[in-house]
Amino acid sequence: MQIEEVLIQIKKETDNNLERFFENKKNQLKQKEGFADVLEMTEYLQKYVLNYGKRIRPILFCCGYVVYGGEKKKEILEAAISVELIHSYLLIHDDIIDRDDFRHKDLSMHKRYEKKFDEDPSIKAPEHYGTSMAIIAGDLASSFGYEALTNCDFPVELKLKAIQKMNQIIEDTISGEAMDVELCIKKDFKPEDITEMQIYKTAKYTMEGPLHLGAILAGAGENCLRLLSKFAIPLGIAFQLQDDIIGIFGDERATGKPVGADIREGKMTLLTARAIENADEEQKKFLNCILGKKDATIGEIGRVKEIIISTGSLEFSQQKIDALIEQAKQIIDKMKIKEVHKQFLRDLGDFMARRKY
Amino acid sequence: MQIEEVLIQIKKETDNNLERFFENKKNQLKQKEGFADVLEMTEYLQKYVLNYGKRIRPILFCCGYVVYGGEKKKEILEAAISVELIHSYLLIHDDIIDRDDFRHKDLSMHKRYEKKFDEDPSIKAPEHYGTSMAIIAGDLASSFGYEALTNCDFPVELKLKAIQKMNQIIEDTISGEAMDVELCIKKDFKPEDITEMQIYKTAKYTMEGPLHLGAILAGAGENCLRLLSKFAIPLGIAFQLQDDIIGIFGDERATGKPVGADIREGKMTLLTARAIENADEEQKKFLNCILGKKDATIGEIGRVKEIIISTGSLEFSQQKIDALIEQAKQIIDKMKIKEVHKQFLRDLGDFMARRKY
Repeated sequence: MQIEEVLIQIKKETDNNLERFFENKKNQLKQKEGFADVLEMTEYLQKYVLNYGKRIRPILFCCGYVVYGGEKKKEILEAAISVELIHSYLLIHDDIIDRDDFRHKDLSMHKRYEKKFDEDPSIKAPEHYGTSMAIIAGDLASSFGYEALTNCDFPVELKLKAIQKMNQIIEDTISGEAMDVELCIKKDFKPEDITEMQIYKTAKYTMEGPLHLGAILAGAGENCLRLLSKFAIPLGIAFQLQDDIIGIFGDERATGKPVGADIREGKMTLLTARAIENADEEQKKFLNCILGKKDATIGEIGRVKEIIISTGSLEFSQQKIDALIEQAKQIIDKMKIKEVHKQFLRDLGDFMARRKY
Repeated sequence: MQIEEVLIQIKKETDNNLERFFENKKNQLKQKEGFADVLEMTEYLQKYVLNYGKRIRPILFCCGYVVYGGEKKKEILEAAISVELIHSYLLIHDDIIDRDDFRHKDLSMHKRYEKKFDEDPSIKAPEHYGTSMAIIAGDLASSFGYEALTNCDFPVELKLKAIQKMNQIIEDTISGEAMDVELCIKKDFKPEDITEMQIYKTAKYTMEGPLHLGAILAGAGENCLRLLSKFAIPLGIAFQLQDDIIGIFGDERATGKPVGADIREGKMTLLTARAIENADEEQKKFLNCILGKKDATIGEIGRVKEIIISTGSLEFSQQKIDALIEQAKQIIDKMKIKEVHKQFLRDLGDFMARRKY
């Protein structure tokens, strides 16, 4: 099977398992009296999670397990939904923080609740209630994620190690998030800050974390995990750089995110930071003015894109991606895993960093 | 030792262990570069957690362990901080939702961050950043709580059971929180809704949860936990009813909460619900007008108190507390634990429900 087919298969199974998890939850809640609000919240969560998702983290979770010799296919697929549920938890809170109204063409959680409350004229502060319910919905998704991992069908010692790893992943990610918020409101950021943040926020979170979790459930030891990190971190940075390119230059139909959203939000990435660094005075002034301007016009967004290209920032990011993928691939040879699994990791690396969505 | 001395001792040890936990965290963070923002957040959390706290949940955690025969004193005290850290997580988010500016005479987390950002005139939306950082700080406290439980020094099987229980406790509490928010914005609540909410939100969370967690780590089985619930739930409801009385009639110096805060917030309790139910038309109109009125005067708050007394609502709550404590005590005799531990639970019940702070 081609790499893409394998990944599509895992994605499909993950969607089915998520669907099953939520249906079970809802059935439990229906049997309790007075839980109508929580049932509704669970339904909102189900829609939020299943509306869209590349399922990259569950996929990597399963990959980490398989390449380290794991063979319990059904069980690992069931456990894998934990990373997707935890991801939803962090996304829902992230959307509040970033004031994102949409998540993959649908309303973000706080906007969905705000809309619900908005329809009732007796409610005075629909925005605050929207935020409140979304904070709670995120917290609920966190519980669901821990639950899926704690209750999965693996030996107790391995599960406990996986939970410890999950704690660490979440802590690192939250730390990245805190740095992100502070960075957004600071004027004197440096391109190094961006890379630091990306390493901790995305490479560790999106790549290393799920790969480690899967490998741990396959019984991989500390040495294996260290080597896996050397593969995952450069791949993760490449993934994030590619994500930033897609965020600014990508096709709205493929990404599900409105064009220019990252620019209007003032999201600091290597692309924007490098552009500011290499820009002339007039360009610098323009970038500082438009980045974070909520009502930036299509024309202004187009000019930002032009500056990112003309300052060489886009090319710089693309070259960096290539170098990082090379770096990641060189680690694979050192791993004590089957050749078929090595090839799988190489294909995975190529696929992850060259995607268009 | 008298019950009060035992509880004071556990509280003291809990404070020391929390202090140690945070100092360790901070030392780890100091060794990493670029983590200044997270270090600051950890310091804020430390102050938030250690500023004040009756440590009721860690105390009950230890009690559950001891009455079921647990003897690892140092280890259970270390594990007990997990419930306090999880409690902070939920409180920080709760304060955002309830728009509470203060927590025990100090600023709530979102207000602390808002104040920090407010001092910088270049920051446009200090309130939003305050909320954002407090959402993240709550999430960080959640990670810390799970970490303390996952890493504690108990057999793996027992720890895993405890983590499963912790998931369930958090899920129930969040469910209660969601119901609470919806209830706050509904006009047609009934006194039954209040009791339902209290059972799930407080009795389970404050009493049953920590007692169960401790008992689980002592190796108590399902039957023991069921019996423990029959003791904990009525005690928990009594505790909450007492808390509501303190919230409206208590002394600000002892509670650390401004007089009338619960009334200004429009917090729905059995006290207020019962008063509305038994009030005449004029009183009902007044209560509906003042409950939730942000700028209610001292005079208006005094009148609300009068109505709660004159409608018989205060007396109703007090009688209910007495009946619940009796109900809880009757269960103790059925427990298969040592007589000294039975007496301890009886004393604990009396102490918890008759406290003035």
